[in-house]
Amino acid sequence: MKNKAITPRNEDFAKWYTDVVRAAKLADYSNVKGCVILEPNGYAIWEKIQSVLDKMFKETGHQNVYLPLLIPESLLSKEGELVEGFAPECAWVTQGGNNTLDERLAIRPTSETLFSDYYSSKVKSYRDLPKLYNQWCNVLRWEKETRPFLRTREFLWQEGHTLHETEKEAREETLRMLKIYEKFFKEYLAIPVITGQKTEKEKFAGAEVTYTCEALMYNGVALQSGTSHYFGQKFSKAYDVKFLNRNNEWEYAYQTSWGVSTRMIGGLIMVHSDENGLVLPPKIAPRQVVIVPINQDEQEIVDLANEYCKKLNDSGISAFIDRTEKSPGFKFAEHEVNGIPVRIEIGKRDLLNGQVTLAKRDTRERIVVDIKCDIVEKVKLLLDEIQNNLYNRALERRNELTYETDDIDEIKKIMDTKPGFVRAHWCGDEACELKMKEIRGMKSRCITEEQVGENDKCVVCGKKAKHMVIWGIQY
Amino acid sequence: MKNKAITPRNEDFAKWYTDVVRAAKLADYSNVKGCVILEPNGYAIWEKIQSVLDKMFKETGHQNVYLPLLIPESLLSKEGELVEGFAPECAWVTQGGNNTLDERLAIRPTSETLFSDYYSSKVKSYRDLPKLYNQWCNVLRWEKETRPFLRTREFLWQEGHTLHETEKEAREETLRMLKIYEKFFKEYLAIPVITGQKTEKEKFAGAEVTYTCEALMYNGVALQSGTSHYFGQKFSKAYDVKFLNRNNEWEYAYQTSWGVSTRMIGGLIMVHSDENGLVLPPKIAPRQVVIVPINQDEQEIVDLANEYCKKLNDSGISAFIDRTEKSPGFKFAEHEVNGIPVRIEIGKRDLLNGQVTLAKRDTRERIVVDIKCDIVEKVKLLLDEIQNNLYNRALERRNELTYETDDIDEIKKIMDTKPGFVRAHWCGDEACELKMKEIRGMKSRCITEEQVGENDKCVVCGKKAKHMVIWGIQY
Repeated sequence: MKNKAITPRNEDFAKWYTDVVRAAKLADYSNVKGCVILEPNGYAIWEKIQSVLDKMFKETGHQNVYLPLLIPESLLSKEGELVEGFAPECAWVTQGGNNTLDERLAIRPTSETLFSDYYSSKVKSYRDLPKLYNQWCNVLRWEKETRPFLRTREFLWQEGHTLHETEKEAREETLRMLKIYEKFFKEYLAIPVITGQKTEKEKFAGAEVTYTCEALMYNGVALQSGTSHYFGQKFSKAYDVKFLNRNNEWEYAYQTSWGVSTRMIGGLIMVHSDENGLVLPPKIAPRQVVIVPINQDEQEIVDLANEYCKKLNDSGISAFIDRTEKSPGFKFAEHEVNGIPVRIEIGKRDLLNGQVTLAKRDTRERIVVDIKCDIVEKVKLLLDEIQNNLYNRALERRNELTYETDDIDEIKKIMDTKPGFVRAHWCGDEACELKMKEIRGMKSRCITEEQVGENDKCVVCGKKAKHMVIWGIQY
Repeated sequence: MKNKAITPRNEDFAKWYTDVVRAAKLADYSNVKGCVILEPNGYAIWEKIQSVLDKMFKETGHQNVYLPLLIPESLLSKEGELVEGFAPECAWVTQGGNNTLDERLAIRPTSETLFSDYYSSKVKSYRDLPKLYNQWCNVLRWEKETRPFLRTREFLWQEGHTLHETEKEAREETLRMLKIYEKFFKEYLAIPVITGQKTEKEKFAGAEVTYTCEALMYNGVALQSGTSHYFGQKFSKAYDVKFLNRNNEWEYAYQTSWGVSTRMIGGLIMVHSDENGLVLPPKIAPRQVVIVPINQDEQEIVDLANEYCKKLNDSGISAFIDRTEKSPGFKFAEHEVNGIPVRIEIGKRDLLNGQVTLAKRDTRERIVVDIKCDIVEKVKLLLDEIQNNLYNRALERRNELTYETDDIDEIKKIMDTKPGFVRAHWCGDEACELKMKEIRGMKSRCITEEQVGENDKCVVCGKKAKHMVIWGIQY
């Protein structure tokens, strides 16, 4: 049985993706070009992501704030690289009420400028440091081609912006947050990510160093899923963020920023989902268990459904009963499309045999258990199993699609047949990076920290290699 | 002892207000005109408000969604009254990237238009109803004069938008949400509000009926603190939101919307705070208890502080230890300014006497308790006491400042000396409402449901009265 609303994944991956987004009611197109509507099922995933990450941020000493949506052009322009990178992507407010404004205001594409401006008025002494701030908000970038979650003009994200007394502390913060993202991807989203440094060409506009979490989608395309930037004193110099240090001298403060967005939901879909719709790791699924009483006119069945539901919710598992009047088959398909990790079916015949049936969304296995079993224990086990299985399956797939070769012709062949991550040496020259782009738009994903051998050569020019780099086609 | 950074409340209320906002580090001005920065202490209150209200909304069956920030002018213009009401307050995006747009896009001042447009594509049958959606987001209104929390160009809020099969159901929803707001104001913010219907002149652009929660500030000025609107079929007709009803006929759906915003934080300040800074109801205070170890080099004191802190947090009370190296007096003043409801002081002398001191922020009373007491129980009691005291104090103040008279000269006198809510009869004529405005800009706050006597006369024109109305000066 397959879901007819969903194009087979191997037939047309792009269409499969949008079919899943629509069928699972995650997002819908709007009449506002390039912007989508996050529907209840999609927004609930974002709320779950927020609650987990927010806790992680707070546990590491960060505080939430909220800065304005609009940035005056003169303020945005103070740091040259940033404005150069982002100005072509800004939406500009030029009229307020009935008046034309004296100065254009950009809708924030990112908020380094506002945080820097704010910090410059707040920080006077090393005693005021560090500032460990984060904000959850919407941002806007005037993209041309858009796809739900992956690239939309407006999207939701968090942006952490921190300010430090020393370079060392700021660099540590940059890596600390990268590790938090990596942990979150692994333990909650069940997505293995490769972390590393971006090349000069690929780093964030204005950053000294950009670290990235790179995930590989089912179809072998890479998704940049989270970034953490070390800015050094660049923004502090542009926005005059200085403090009296412990030697009573003025010094520019050291800054970082880091962010993840609703794009992660796109990654979740493209790593785990299948022909039957959404598949969600239990730890991030807003609803973990659905109970389907097959015969709703049987009091015994209704009672058991209620009992299970209460027990599960009391133990912290998010369960609900489907009391609608649709047919069981229809319900099963619907909950599969929506990616509910575990389904409990309670039918008349089962009941006579003293049994109920549990179904796992990931493998679609059905397991018959004793009606008197400890249902909470059973479900917990299944949820753990699913969580682990999804991670292992994604890791296996990634390993299967990770190649190592310094032969450019082989890379071309790989990218034409079964693309993925390619590990290949690089001399450090931007010209060679650009040359790689000719292979289906491949880009460096990140630089690994691996030692490079004396005889290793750049995959493009054949000169002495500087780094082992992960390459891939990207979203 | 009084806080020198804060202007006395009775000397200059407006200055006192901004002093409290700044001293308690709730918000700061930004270099973006009309927009403020919500600092950690201010944003934490908003997070607390969100978590409580969000739970209330979800318990009554509402789901969260997210709709776009930008609204094309043509879409905004479909409902005449709404666009007339809001167009003069819109900020307009006219450029995207390097291009001039064919059509201006408004930054949402409110989202009835987008929800209606979305519903029109989603709803086909009565089976698709009701839709009970809410979103937490930023909105923008091009205000001329702005004050932190009370009126800023950009602010944060929630806007519920629901769609129903029948007029009855929609009207019930409108009132249900009004009641939820009223309960929240009373039980969490410790603010008594008067609820009632707005007059035709004061209702929301596009609404058939607007209900409001009106709070009275310490200085006798009214604050409209939350509204709930019944739209009937007005937006459904403008945006073609129709469904096949149970008789298989096309019918326009019935709509509501309701919202509260960061403005509530302004209300919190102006109802409860004092010359020493912020006063927060414990149920909405992000940090409820601060523990100040007076002598931090005494291990016994540090141990006790840790023990108390753990016990309190384990029991769900949010407590923290002030380990900074400032003087105790400085710390006390700082925590008072920040509105931490309960302070626990642990000093050497106290300890020798087997005692610790608790201080209540609302009355600034200090209570000495046995060191071996059940600290959780003691603190819980104090928090309850403070919560109740704040509500009762606010209620008393409001009652003291609520007048009833149909003598307009008396009203003038009241408004010039000790303003507040005035209960006075009204004939229902807009001209009389406008006449009242001549008294320090007074406006009708809401219409009460009270029976009007045969002989009751309009406070302005002396003709037969239709309603008992609450009047007041407003923010």
